[in-house]
This record gives sequence, C-alpha cells and structure tokens, in this order.
Amino acid sequence: MIQSIDRAARVLELLQGARHLGITELAARLELSPSTVHGIVKSLHEHGFVAKERGGQRYMLGPTLLRLSNVYLDTLDVRARALRWTQELSRRTGMAVRLGAAHFSDVLVIHHVLRPDDSPQMLETGMAIPAHASAMGKVLLAHDLGFQRTVFAEPLRSLTGDTVTDPARLALELPGIADLGAASELDEAVIGESSLAAPIGDARGDIVAALAVVFPSSQAPTPDPVLQALRETARNISRELGATIWPPHVAPADD
Amino acid sequence: MIQSIDRAARVLELLQGARHLGITELAARLELSPSTVHGIVKSLHEHGFVAKERGGQRYMLGPTLLRLSNVYLDTLDVRARALRWTQELSRRTGMAVRLGAAHFSDVLVIHHVLRPDDSPQMLETGMAIPAHASAMGKVLLAHDLGFQRTVFAEPLRSLTGDTVTDPARLALELPGIADLGAASELDEAVIGESSLAAPIGDARGDIVAALAVVFPSSQAPTPDPVLQALRETARNISRELGATIWPPHVAPADD
Repeated sequence: MIQSIDRAARVLELLQGARHLGITELAARLELSPSTVHGIVKSLHEHGFVAKERGGQRYMLGPTLLRLSNVYLDTLDVRARALRWTQELSRRTGMAVRLGAAHFSDVLVIHHVLRPDDSPQMLETGMAIPAHASAMGKVLLAHDLGFQRTVFAEPLRSLTGDTVTDPARLALELPGIADLGAASELDEAVIGESSLAAPIGDARGDIVAALAVVFPSSQAPTPDPVLQALRETARNISRELGATIWPPHVAPADD
Repeated sequence: MIQSIDRAARVLELLQGARHLGITELAARLELSPSTVHGIVKSLHEHGFVAKERGGQRYMLGPTLLRLSNVYLDTLDVRARALRWTQELSRRTGMAVRLGAAHFSDVLVIHHVLRPDDSPQMLETGMAIPAHASAMGKVLLAHDLGFQRTVFAEPLRSLTGDTVTDPARLALELPGIADLGAASELDEAVIGESSLAAPIGDARGDIVAALAVVFPSSQAPTPDPVLQALRETARNISRELGATIWPPHVAPADD
C-alpha cells in the first residue's frame, strides 16, 4: 500500500460522505497536518478528482470521477449483455429493475431501468445499498463466501425496523437462496419498497451480479409470475455470458 | 504535486483509454518499473479504483469510481436546479437535452435527457466532447477566457470533415456567441448530429454550465422557436442559481 495513494483515496471517501470539506476539516479527520492534506488535495485537483467550491475554500468531488465512471460502466460485460433483457423485464413486470454488483460490503447499482410509468423517479445507478438489507445483496452473499466474510466482518446496520441485523439469522437463509436462485427483501432497506433478486453467473459458474425487480411494498405482486420472469431473465443474461449452469455455484472465499 | 498520486491518476487515465491493461503494459506506457506500477495498482485496487479482470491478469477501472461519481453528480447545484427545466425543454422541443461543464479541454455531459420518442438511445452522462466541436463548448469558450486558454493551448482535433480546427476562425465567432447567449454546431462532433447551446450563469455572473438541444442534422428544426425555448430555459435555470444578469459576463483568465 502506497501511503499517499491511500491518503488520497481517503480524502475522496471523506468528500463522498460530507460533500464539501475544507483543508482544516480534512486534516482533522485524517489526523494529518494541513500542509500534508493540502499537497494531496492539490494533486487530486490537478487531475480533476476534486473541485474547489465556487467562491469558497472548500473542496468537493470532481468531474474526472464522472468521466472515469462512464468508462467503467462501458467495460462491464455483464451490464452490456443485460441492457435489453432488463428493459424487457421491466416492461413485462411493470416494475423498476436493478442490476447490482458486490462493492466492499454493499451492493452497487450498475444499471437501473425506471418503472415504466410516469411517476417521478431518480436514476439509481451508482447508488450503494448495504448488502444485508438488499435482495441483490442476499443473492450475492448466498453465492460468494468471500463476500459473506467481508459483510459479516462488521456489525449489520439497521436501516428500517425490518432490516435483518443478526448475521446468524441471515446466514441461515443463504443456502436456501443459493438453491432456489432467488431472494426477497420486504421494507428492509427503505420503508415502502421491496424487491426480489436472482443471481447472474458467468462461464466459470461464478456469480458476477444480481438482478432485481423493485416494487412498492403496498403493491407486492403475485409472486409467482414475477419470480418466474426474474429467474428466466437472470438465466438468459447468464447464458449470454457463457454460463452453462444456473444458478451459479457457491464460490469459496479466497485465502 | 505528489508523485505517487500523479502516477495513480495516470494509471486511471490509461485504463480509461485502453479499458484493460496488464502491469507490463502500464509500466511501459508510464516508463516506470513493473514493481513500482504493481505497488500503485495494488493501492488503487485496495480502494476499488481498479478491478482485476475476471480470470485474467489485466486491470480495468473499478466500482468505487461509479460510487464517487454518483455523489459528484448529487453535489452539483446546477444539475439539481436544471432537472425539471431540462425535462420540460425536451418535452417542448421533442429533442434530446444535454447539460455540460468544462473539463480540461472537453465538455463533460453532466445530465442528459433522452429524446422523447421510442428510438434506441444511450445515456450520455459522463461522456466528454472536445469543446471546439461542441455547441456547449463554444458557449463555454465564449464566456470563459481561462477555458479558451486551456482549449487553444493544444491543436484542435478534427472529428468530422466539418469540425472547425482553426483556432483563429473559432475565436472570431466567440464574441458574437457571448453577445447572443447561444451557439450552434452542425455535424462538427458526430456526422448526422447537430446542436444548439446556451450558457447557464450563477449569482456572480460566471458561466457554470452550458445547456444544449441535440437533433439529427437531417431534422434541423425551424431555428427560431427552438432557440427561443433553449435561451429561455438557460435563463430560468440561471435565475434559480441566483443570476441577476443573463447571458453571463465574459470571465477573464486567472493568472
């Protein structure tokens, strides 16, 4: 680990949480001298990773991150293959569709199809959802023991009254989820919102992403046809990625 | 400039261009030893800025960039204020709408409203367009002499037969663009695609972004009503940002 790169990453992570921070605040949070932090911020600014607040002295995240993330999305084979399938799944079910991948102990939304109605909705690509509170997260946990180890290494945070925060209780559900190739979540991340998810695997039989349909909890669908459409779509995307088995196998943790 | 942060940024920029690179290729392009590059990549990987290709030895951009860019977009006041106005402009004109900001010598698309029809379209948020080939870029150049200096410091690249690559010719157009508060571009970045753009200013009278309507060159609109809707929308967004004058003033270059 190169110290100054680690510190630069931590500056970006702090700005991600706090939005706008001055050198003094950054220095205090990183327990570094203001002049050290100033050097880091200046280097990040030079490359557009941070920007200076207009007419202020505080810093915020910069445009280069957007430029790079756009290329990141373009390099994701699973996302490219899933585009038309997710569109079709949304049309068939009338629901919002998310594609998500493991990111530290979260699920990162790498693609989002808005619910096909005229309701006001925000694009959720780039949003991170704690894995234990997400149907996609449960699917990723069920098929990837390395991800389980990461997520269960820290206490599970409660997001709503319905979030499962007991790792033992969650762990009990996982083998069934892996067998079925589907998980559900009811009000566990956001009150009033629920979802069903299924795994997407690749040619090696590894899980690479999870696919979810998201719906208002008050309009919970007749589960069977929706679950069937979801699993079918996840299987089709997996097949395009070269998968010969589905659901994917349960991958051991690296040692 | 802290050397290792600079090198880390260059690794990310190389991966942005090439998508997948191994340590040896990165080392050759950076003219550094493989072991130095390995240390940089390892640090970036630790924070999710790069990811390792599945089943391979090459690296690509990583998910943390998407997470951070999502927060970057959320912190942009101009984008937040523009959301409903851009939607309305797209509805009124039947065209795609882009919001863009200066990023080195490019215009970075920070918001994109798809053309309101059923044609297949890609979301362009995060795309970078060379400023000199873009109507948004011309508007940003006209109102910001610092940006002019950056863009004109390098030769202007030809993207289509219609790209204006002579800085003197482009410079001649800019005062008129600043006076009018609008610029146009016909097939200059992409053959078959044209656009009109207008500036968005803030409370200090500085330009902060450009707003564009984008249309197929074969379906060039009757310019007047579209230009009027575009300028009106740019003025309304500027007003929400606290602007008391519009178009914004021409900002001098910092020295």
